[in-house]
Amino acid sequence: MVYDNQQVEIRMKDGRRLEGVALPSTDFSDKSILIVKLKNGYNVGLSRKDILRVERRGRVEGIGRMGGVGNMLKGKPSTGTRDVPPVGVLGTGGTVASRVDYVTGGVRASMTAEEILAFVPEVAEFADIKFVNLFSKLSEDMCPQDWPEIVRATARLLRQTEGVVVLHGTDTLHYTAAALAFMLTTSKPVVLTGAQRSSDRPSTDAFLNIQCGLRTALSDLGEPVVCFHSSTSDGTCDLMRATRTRKMHTSARAAFRSINTPVLARMDRGGKLEKLADYLLRSKGPAKVKVDVRLEPEVALVKVHPGADPRILKWYAQRGYKGVVLEGTGLGHVPVSPSNGRSWMPVIQKLAGEMAVVMTSQTIYGRTHPFVYTNLRELSQAGVIFAGDTLPETAMVKLMWVLGHTQKLEKVARQMQTNIKGELNPRTLEISPPSQ
Amino acid sequence: MVYDNQQVEIRMKDGRRLEGVALPSTDFSDKSILIVKLKNGYNVGLSRKDILRVERRGRVEGIGRMGGVGNMLKGKPSTGTRDVPPVGVLGTGGTVASRVDYVTGGVRASMTAEEILAFVPEVAEFADIKFVNLFSKLSEDMCPQDWPEIVRATARLLRQTEGVVVLHGTDTLHYTAAALAFMLTTSKPVVLTGAQRSSDRPSTDAFLNIQCGLRTALSDLGEPVVCFHSSTSDGTCDLMRATRTRKMHTSARAAFRSINTPVLARMDRGGKLEKLADYLLRSKGPAKVKVDVRLEPEVALVKVHPGADPRILKWYAQRGYKGVVLEGTGLGHVPVSPSNGRSWMPVIQKLAGEMAVVMTSQTIYGRTHPFVYTNLRELSQAGVIFAGDTLPETAMVKLMWVLGHTQKLEKVARQMQTNIKGELNPRTLEISPPSQ
Repeated sequence: MVYDNQQVEIRMKDGRRLEGVALPSTDFSDKSILIVKLKNGYNVGLSRKDILRVERRGRVEGIGRMGGVGNMLKGKPSTGTRDVPPVGVLGTGGTVASRVDYVTGGVRASMTAEEILAFVPEVAEFADIKFVNLFSKLSEDMCPQDWPEIVRATARLLRQTEGVVVLHGTDTLHYTAAALAFMLTTSKPVVLTGAQRSSDRPSTDAFLNIQCGLRTALSDLGEPVVCFHSSTSDGTCDLMRATRTRKMHTSARAAFRSINTPVLARMDRGGKLEKLADYLLRSKGPAKVKVDVRLEPEVALVKVHPGADPRILKWYAQRGYKGVVLEGTGLGHVPVSPSNGRSWMPVIQKLAGEMAVVMTSQTIYGRTHPFVYTNLRELSQAGVIFAGDTLPETAMVKLMWVLGHTQKLEKVARQMQTNIKGELNPRTLEISPPSQ
Repeated sequence: MVYDNQQVEIRMKDGRRLEGVALPSTDFSDKSILIVKLKNGYNVGLSRKDILRVERRGRVEGIGRMGGVGNMLKGKPSTGTRDVPPVGVLGTGGTVASRVDYVTGGVRASMTAEEILAFVPEVAEFADIKFVNLFSKLSEDMCPQDWPEIVRATARLLRQTEGVVVLHGTDTLHYTAAALAFMLTTSKPVVLTGAQRSSDRPSTDAFLNIQCGLRTALSDLGEPVVCFHSSTSDGTCDLMRATRTRKMHTSARAAFRSINTPVLARMDRGGKLEKLADYLLRSKGPAKVKVDVRLEPEVALVKVHPGADPRILKWYAQRGYKGVVLEGTGLGHVPVSPSNGRSWMPVIQKLAGEMAVVMTSQTIYGRTHPFVYTNLRELSQAGVIFAGDTLPETAMVKLMWVLGHTQKLEKVARQMQTNIKGELNPRTLEISPPSQ
């Protein structure tokens, strides 16, 4: 039996009773499992063989009836009969757009944004959603050449809406978030979110992320943020500054962390926002949307480690790279007098006049510093640009963007040491890596 | 006036009175500052111009009198008159061995282990310290070729003592810790520690780290650990498994974090140990000390990122590298179908049969997984070795050590996927990156 989008009451063979909405099955769904969205917002997967009886309680509101999602699902423009504000949803692929393929056991990015949103029909009560499906890319395949397209599509949607939610694979979401921050200037919210488990799984984290993301797109925030589970429970999402966020767990729901700067706010699915730090506010009047996607993609992120070979920098220079971001050790070190003879100093002294050499720290938390130790001063004198407390990944994206505007190394250095989109604190905030 | 190691009572011009021990001045000390160790263990720097009067209260106990540190300072063997157990201290350099150079404002690694320990004379009450000064190296200059020397010196000291404290620069301390774990097998404790601020500074974190380190060297622990401040306060140190620790802040006192595994225990300066997780215990009988320092140093740690150029792997292969550890995205991804045409798959398919290609995750927390996504399965089929929840830095050290024993790729793969020194959990522990 198919109960798609039906309000159902289920009696299990073990005596339990459950009420909720039966979620739509897809070509890839396991037909022996019925997925039900419970009233508390959780989805459960019920083995059909354990079910005694399913009783229909009517079709759920919001699908095929209400202003937003329902009509979108049928490809019609919003009727606008309900007075809910327009929000853009940009699909780019990722796990959030994926289904389990029960043939191979793997996961495929095959859902449109409309199909994903059909799992959370209740959002139509507060948002009139305009969908754009730009890509169907996995996170690992996003490359700098994709960022301008994402930025332009976001800008187009922003001009028709109050804010935009970008659905994206999580692994490289923070790189794209930084790119959006530098390339797009607007005081409307742009919210990046996704999922650690595909949207058709009972255990998916997609729905809270999307619901909170849509609420954030309608909030008073005026800067791009990453919106992701605050914790393993399905309570709230953290809103984190786009240039300050990093994926810090392969698979946990609360995978993203705000680094070197506080979480800006917490959002729940009902739209209640708890402000935790200062953030830029949505402008009162009509918001401008400015796009500047000039980019130099030939920038590498290079990890320094004991024994690391400095000739790698020459290889990049010979390949025409315009810049490298080093993940140095501690305050921004490279080997200078190692016993294996591989000093990075002569290579850097030669190359830092030809290409931008930017220093970040592999400790992730804290800031690089060009003065504490003699070796640091010498690196600085050689032309190495210390990026302060900018994250390595953000520094790479920023350097690509800065080099897209000027390749004069003095100007590049000044830009990399100037805060543009919240990526660099002039002073160190006392935020330690949190304790367990 | 020189008050080195004198018990003093100080009257300040503003009326304050302070009691403590005047710490020794050095050639590099600022002569206008008197550093006094207060009874609560903190050091304060007092400007001599603010001091009204200093009264001597006698030479402090422990310097030049007691069994341990005093005699060591004079280069004599321990008298053994006091019944305190022998502990080894191995100096290798780093900030813990550094003084502020008041001429340049920088910091130089110029102190011997004896000189450092002279700041904490009270440790002679519980430990008869045997010093070895092996190197005077800064953290960034430690390279794989140094690890066998550190391991051999540690082993020699271990055979004469109950446990060894290795003083080391912090930036690469976790790489050396992993090397010690793989190269040295013993059930006596080996404790790595250091300092974020040089030992001659009033604000140094060195003394708590050293005191707790010495206590740990005499504890029931039977495995190598990193010992470092639990928090910004000077209360306790965390004892963290050597293969599971990572420097996670450029400058905070609590710079090190135990990743993917719990902190093993907390130690205070009085020797009180709070056990927090299971750890290997010191053997009851005489402990064996086994050294195996065979190492293949030509292994690189390569960070994957959007736009990353896969030809870098060819460069390493052509240079004769025997292995690379990739810091992939998420569960262990590389670009496979990016729009810039730079797929890593063909390069990996070609090279993974010639050199060891090991996959870790740049999320740091969590574990790589070869099955969830089609692209991961294909990487695994191409011969990529997924290192589970092993840290990238630990995986690099382990791969160097494994390749030092066999270069047969099948055997290498099996070793990299087998837990040897606590670096790999067979199953995922539910430890998330902690919240702020």
